[in-house]
Amino acid sequence: VADASRFFLESEQPPVAGSAVTIALEGSRPLAVEIQALVARSGPGNPRRATTGIDTNRVLMLIAVLARHAGVNLTAHDVYVNVAGGLRIEEPAADLAVAAALASSLRERPIRHGTVLAGELSLAGRVRHAGRAERRIAEARRIGFDRLVTGPGRDSDGNRPEGLVIATDIRAALALAMEPA
Amino acid sequence: VADASRFFLESEQPPVAGSAVTIALEGSRPLAVEIQALVARSGPGNPRRATTGIDTNRVLMLIAVLARHAGVNLTAHDVYVNVAGGLRIEEPAADLAVAAALASSLRERPIRHGTVLAGELSLAGRVRHAGRAERRIAEARRIGFDRLVTGPGRDSDGNRPEGLVIATDIRAALALAMEPA
Amino acid sequence: VADASRFFLESEQPPVAGSAVTIALEGSRPLAVEIQALVARSGPGNPRRATTGIDTNRVLMLIAVLARHAGVNLTAHDVYVNVAGGLRIEEPAADLAVAAALASSLRERPIRHGTVLAGELSLAGRVRHAGRAERRIAEARRIGFDRLVTGPGRDSDGNRPEGLVIATDIRAALALAMEPA
Amino acid sequence: VADASRFFLESEQPPVAGSAVTIALEGSRPLAVEIQALVARSGPGNPRRATTGIDTNRVLMLIAVLARHAGVNLTAHDVYVNVAGGLRIEEPAADLAVAAALASSLRERPIRHGTVLAGELSLAGRVRHAGRAERRIAEARRIGFDRLVTGPGRDSDGNRPEGLVIATDIRAALALAMEPA
Amino acid sequence: VADASRFFLESEQPPVAGSAVTIALEGSRPLAVEIQALVARSGPGNPRRATTGIDTNRVLMLIAVLARHAGVNLTAHDVYVNVAGGLRIEEPAADLAVAAALASSLRERPIRHGTVLAGELSLAGRVRHAGRAERRIAEARRIGFDRLVTGPGRDSDGNRPEGLVIATDIRAALALAMEPA
Amino acid sequence: VADASRFFLESEQPPVAGSAVTIALEGSRPLAVEIQALVARSGPGNPRRATTGIDTNRVLMLIAVLARHAGVNLTAHDVYVNVAGGLRIEEPAADLAVAAALASSLRERPIRHGTVLAGELSLAGRVRHAGRAERRIAEARRIGFDRLVTGPGRDSDGNRPEGLVIATDIRAALALAMEPA
Repeated sequence: VADASRFFLESEQPPVAGSAVTIALEGSRPLAVEIQALVARSGPGNPRRATTGIDTNRVLMLIAVLARHAGVNLTAHDVYVNVAGGLRIEEPAADLAVAAALASSLRERPIRHGTVLAGELSLAGRVRHAGRAERRIAEARRIGFDRLVTGPGRDSDGNRPEGLVIATDIRAALALAMEPA
Repeated sequence: VADASRFFLESEQPPVAGSAVTIALEGSRPLAVEIQALVARSGPGNPRRATTGIDTNRVLMLIAVLARHAGVNLTAHDVYVNVAGGLRIEEPAADLAVAAALASSLRERPIRHGTVLAGELSLAGRVRHAGRAERRIAEARRIGFDRLVTGPGRDSDGNRPEGLVIATDIRAALALAMEPA
Repeated sequence: VADASRFFLESEQPPVAGSAVTIALEGSRPLAVEIQALVARSGPGNPRRATTGIDTNRVLMLIAVLARHAGVNLTAHDVYVNVAGGLRIEEPAADLAVAAALASSLRERPIRHGTVLAGELSLAGRVRHAGRAERRIAEARRIGFDRLVTGPGRDSDGNRPEGLVIATDIRAALALAMEPA
Repeated sequence: VADASRFFLESEQPPVAGSAVTIALEGSRPLAVEIQALVARSGPGNPRRATTGIDTNRVLMLIAVLARHAGVNLTAHDVYVNVAGGLRIEEPAADLAVAAALASSLRERPIRHGTVLAGELSLAGRVRHAGRAERRIAEARRIGFDRLVTGPGRDSDGNRPEGLVIATDIRAALALAMEPA
Repeated sequence: VADASRFFLESEQPPVAGSAVTIALEGSRPLAVEIQALVARSGPGNPRRATTGIDTNRVLMLIAVLARHAGVNLTAHDVYVNVAGGLRIEEPAADLAVAAALASSLRERPIRHGTVLAGELSLAGRVRHAGRAERRIAEARRIGFDRLVTGPGRDSDGNRPEGLVIATDIRAALALAMEPA
Repeated sequence: VADASRFFLESEQPPVAGSAVTIALEGSRPLAVEIQALVARSGPGNPRRATTGIDTNRVLMLIAVLARHAGVNLTAHDVYVNVAGGLRIEEPAADLAVAAALASSLRERPIRHGTVLAGELSLAGRVRHAGRAERRIAEARRIGFDRLVTGPGRDSDGNRPEGLVIATDIRAALALAMEPA
């Protein structure tokens, strides 16, 4: 964890399009993970979809959700998704960061400074609340982020920690997460 | 289980097309599981079928059953099926909810409020009774549902619990499960 | 076993085309298993072949045997084969029931009332005797069937139990198993 | 073993095209195994190659060897290969029986009465001697066969058992194994 | 390790295009590994991508990063990547050497004498600092290399060892690693 | 080992095109292994590449190396590679024998009498010295071979055993290994 956090803290480069950070849970330990997307107009033939560190079928679904519910159309683009650091993500709460990285790459606009995302997406485009949001936002804050975009709901203790930004659906989440054009 | 149930109880959003709930059995413990489907007119080339949390061949069969026995034709649509929460469903009794989610997405009509579905589908379009239906309906009721659509038959104790709605075939099951247009 | 048998005993629905019952052996215990087939005229492109509960290559072979040795041609049809109840069949003796379900679905004629099938098919279209036929027919009788179609031969004790119907090849087996048109 | 042998002993049917028997070694125990092939003129598109009980790549190679070194051309045929009884063959010595079954099916001429085959084929079309040939021919004789076609060589004891028929290459082996037209 | 090092020390051949050396970490032990690339104008149909010793999806991504961020376009080339010595590389820090080998092969210019590379690439084309760079450069020096191209950052002890050459992005890294034309 | 050696010793057949022998190391035990290749003009569609006993991707690479660095072009040929005796080869030192078998089959000229090959190929076409060459040549001699073609270098003891023939690249290795036309 220390290592992963240090990477984010030390980086002095300006944010780039196609990169989104989520706070994953490994067991109960929060871990900052960078999701990267790269989209490029595809040539003739089927567009390419290649992923490392995340299930390709999951990405296919998120691409379909973006098209149907957020007006983000990748039909004519090759799509690459990568999880930084050689990590492998299984948790559905990474959905929101993957979708945000894809939209960010297509629109060539970076995610807003200080923003992380966590929340499962349904095929109807709704965002599900990320469990243990308090732990996630605490870790985010520790490494220099101050907003966690997630879905509606509350943690078991009924509190809504400071810094939580609630989005009901994918369209709202993208609006909250991305820099205005 | 608590977690899964809480998710259904807390949700205050109106029901959406393409979502159906089944009560699965993990061993003998009932568990509410949301099945999501998304269908979209496909472009040229073979229509896409991508699934997470359920065997793709199973979904191919259910698509064929829907076409033959319920007049639900997905030949010209890309089809995505997802099991919410990152769960994996192996039980054939999930068939009915998968088929209902697909039909609901295509027709853009949500499943009726308070309705869950459980029952294996045969390739002839018949619905098989979901075992331990009494336990399933009890769990459904606990989290705010009051109807369980399943196939004909009875549990080992011979009782037919209240709230059970019996459908002999897939066409009848869809009619009972979906909102009138 | 009890469960599987009860399913067959309780069912009061008329027999449907595309369904055939075999008596499988799990170790030495007989088990009634329903094989379902669904065939449908295929669109342009390669016809689809999807199976659950049985090896797809096995089904490809049986389709070829049906074409060559029984005049049952599925070249222009999508083909789905399913084993009811989420079971998985490895025993070659299921061949005859799979082939009968396929022919029954194509011809839209159900298998004769009271008939089960068991026997491996060779690529030359011959039916091999199902081992322990006496145990199989006993189980079949217990749940309401009275005829077991299988290949020539005899059990180790040299007896031929009552209810055994012998077919040398696939064409004869189908004639014995299916309702006249 | 008893079972497999009995099957061959009891069979009173005339030999069919597309069937060849090998004597495999399971550890050091000989076992009679029937290899079945079915070839059929293929439709448009790539010809189909489906196998059960034997590696498909192995069969692709044997098809190439037959074309190059024996004038048996299957380019325009769908090809199915099956190992009877649900067995799985890993031993390269099964090559000769697979190749003979394929040629027998294409030419519609059965393998000669009383003949079994064992021997690995090289890509140059040469037949390698089957190890422990003495044990293999003894088992063959016990169940009613009297000739074992194999490659040149001798067993560790230097004897050449009676009934061994030696073929240097695939063309010679097929000539020795098949009925004259 | 001894063996791998000796290979590099003994080689008296001039450097070739398409070869790049990385210093991998096996646990905490540094190990020199040669990455080889071969690109060749592809014929009609999809260009071929084949790899041994490294995940093919990883290479697909690096090809996309080279196209987008370094002007190295392999769309019309077959691409082969191989890890020498039958090794398998999982560490993302090998990215930079793979990308350099690909660019070197396309441009037909070798990597500069004495240069090794280590660093993960992001889909935005940025180079991440290779952890334990001090150990890596020490091993590189032991076998005759004196420059390690990697990304910005520093090791846990805060030192920047001699011989480290820092590149922020893939374009800068290639310029530093390759012989001028 | 005894068995494998005996096979080579006993064989009295003239050498054939498409066959090359390597001396592999199983642990530290040397083992003579025959690599077989068969190439045939391919029909329309993608040329076929099928292998048994060796990784197909490895063969794809060797085909690319032969095209680029030795003028051996297999683009329009179906290619089959087989390891005799049902063995599986993982050692990269088998590369040289695989490449030689492929070139030998295409040119229809056998490998020179008494010659074995061992050495990993780089994508640049260079031959790497086969480790423990002394043990390999000793085994080769024991079964009737007297030349081992490999890459430049020496064994750990600094000796170069008699019978070693050194080739720096694939083109030189093929010239040394094959019969003049």
